[in-house]
Amino acid sequence: MSETKTLRVGISCGDLNGIGLEVILKTFEDNRMMQDVTPIVYASSHVVSHHRKVLGLEEVQFHGVDHSSDALPRKLNVVNVWAEELELDLGKPSGKLSEYSIKSLEAAANDLATGKVDVLVTAPIDKNSMQASGFAFPGHTEFLAHMAGSDNPVLMILVGDGLRVGTVTGHIPLKDVADSVTTERILSKARLFHQSLLRDFGVASPRIAVLGLNPHAGDGGTLGSEDRERILPAVRKLNDEGILAMGPFAADGFFGSGGYKHFDGVLAMYHDQGLAPFKALSFGNGVNFTAGLPVVRTSPDHGTGLDIAGKGEADPGSFRQAVWSAGDIMHHREVYKAMNVNPLQPQKKERGGE
Amino acid sequence: MSETKTLRVGISCGDLNGIGLEVILKTFEDNRMMQDVTPIVYASSHVVSHHRKVLGLEEVQFHGVDHSSDALPRKLNVVNVWAEELELDLGKPSGKLSEYSIKSLEAAANDLATGKVDVLVTAPIDKNSMQASGFAFPGHTEFLAHMAGSDNPVLMILVGDGLRVGTVTGHIPLKDVADSVTTERILSKARLFHQSLLRDFGVASPRIAVLGLNPHAGDGGTLGSEDRERILPAVRKLNDEGILAMGPFAADGFFGSGGYKHFDGVLAMYHDQGLAPFKALSFGNGVNFTAGLPVVRTSPDHGTGLDIAGKGEADPGSFRQAVWSAGDIMHHREVYKAMNVNPLQPQKKERGGE
Repeated sequence: MSETKTLRVGISCGDLNGIGLEVILKTFEDNRMMQDVTPIVYASSHVVSHHRKVLGLEEVQFHGVDHSSDALPRKLNVVNVWAEELELDLGKPSGKLSEYSIKSLEAAANDLATGKVDVLVTAPIDKNSMQASGFAFPGHTEFLAHMAGSDNPVLMILVGDGLRVGTVTGHIPLKDVADSVTTERILSKARLFHQSLLRDFGVASPRIAVLGLNPHAGDGGTLGSEDRERILPAVRKLNDEGILAMGPFAADGFFGSGGYKHFDGVLAMYHDQGLAPFKALSFGNGVNFTAGLPVVRTSPDHGTGLDIAGKGEADPGSFRQAVWSAGDIMHHREVYKAMNVNPLQPQKKERGGE
Repeated sequence: MSETKTLRVGISCGDLNGIGLEVILKTFEDNRMMQDVTPIVYASSHVVSHHRKVLGLEEVQFHGVDHSSDALPRKLNVVNVWAEELELDLGKPSGKLSEYSIKSLEAAANDLATGKVDVLVTAPIDKNSMQASGFAFPGHTEFLAHMAGSDNPVLMILVGDGLRVGTVTGHIPLKDVADSVTTERILSKARLFHQSLLRDFGVASPRIAVLGLNPHAGDGGTLGSEDRERILPAVRKLNDEGILAMGPFAADGFFGSGGYKHFDGVLAMYHDQGLAPFKALSFGNGVNFTAGLPVVRTSPDHGTGLDIAGKGEADPGSFRQAVWSAGDIMHHREVYKAMNVNPLQPQKKERGGE
């Protein structure tokens, strides 16, 4: 991106009966959002018009195009991924309509892979409906990893105001969590977190807090052994590798005392342990980022919102943050790359008398 | 309590090398705390003087007595539970000193059982040291249930500003949580929560939110079956019993969307799921209350704080709230009792033609 160029933000529309298009329209209702950003929404002029009408957002202008290459800078562009007119029923499960959520995501991801857009922001999908319509992935993350042909581990990071939370285990039943929290997996996720803090968030010396698995981080072993036997060895190994990790911390005290303010990243052991306090603290402005992918993808931290779809009640805060975060991460990556293109070789110290 | 009487608050001193006496002294440093409250601390004049001196709180006056019956109203009373002078080392594990934490708790609990104090507020203890010194209970709650000769189930409730969180399972390893979350246990805890909201918190028609066990409350069964097979049937049964319970809710979205504001109580399935977001939101002013006991006992929601003991850094906010909450709960219980002493019999409807 030179100064005259804008960041081309590809946007998949998510569930067509949900609040995805509402938060997109509300985000770009404010022209200032497009000062440095060119949004390119993958959907159809027809569905965007429908949402705009239902929501009373008719003053939001958009520019329909057939290909992303026709997108106008600093305009809300809508790529017509399909031609047919769809019958929407906002607030209802999308069922067969989810086929079009897949089309939107595929088109956006293709343009991301070929550099036609710089970053991708994904509106929330209904995974169950999409899988019923033939989507062969548990979620966006796995789909994008597949697209990128990447076998590398990935890490979901929730990004909020001064708080970044990653999780060692993700979308698995709680009963499987304890067995899945192995020293190896903690190491793999912590290294990835460290790398992402350096490269994607511009943190020069990342400090990572590692939470315990059990209540009170096991309370000296009386409430479970994993904290001592798996997490503590992982923290020590990370330190040996030069990664500034501390823990395991009891999750409740850690969030209660504001301990998280002293760290650049917090590695939770499982979904609700990290996400429940994160969302409690970020008050609807959190962003989901997938670290470990070659491409930059963010999303809002809410779901399809069927209960409020079509009512105009959806808060665009998280989606707006997702757009900004994607831009920030892209910028940090470019700076990091530039700094490391031709680093100065460390000077060899001369030693006499050896 | 008549208007001229004050609430007699028994206070066990907790770990003698921790921040317990610091938060007690700081709480009653302000005379306004004693307008309606007579604090009675179970310890010894010697240890209280020691903390006072180390912390530079010498202007806090206290009144040493041999028995709680000698306590002066609206003064900070210290009952000399032991005569010997102890060697304290603030910030160090208390080891054999924890014998005196036990003495303090036993004396306070005895006076509570015999009505010499109205309520009990417990400063934090070091459970491991106390157990090594012969304390045969996992914590305060079990000790008090034993003292009360009660086999009834109890429920730990965290009480904060507009937020009350109970947990179905407590201090157990995470790997045992899923098996322990049974429909029966959810029902038992939810009924107790309901009863406590009525009686202890003065809520006329309690609304209880029940959280899911798995991420996204199981996401329709794809992330675990317990939400559908155990929690949902429990919620329906509660509704059949006339208890206004809803759920299961995904924990992260529930706290993120502020959903908790619409409920009088939140029943989490396990320790960190409830306590991590609770403490994140209550910012150090949470109070721990044990529902289901015949007596009223509260405590601050922090630990012994060995890392900051003796430095004057401890925040008395949570302890102060614990004193206030104990008084509020006592008051609600008396009102509830008065209202139910001789309730009007519901009028029998006359039906013709039967």
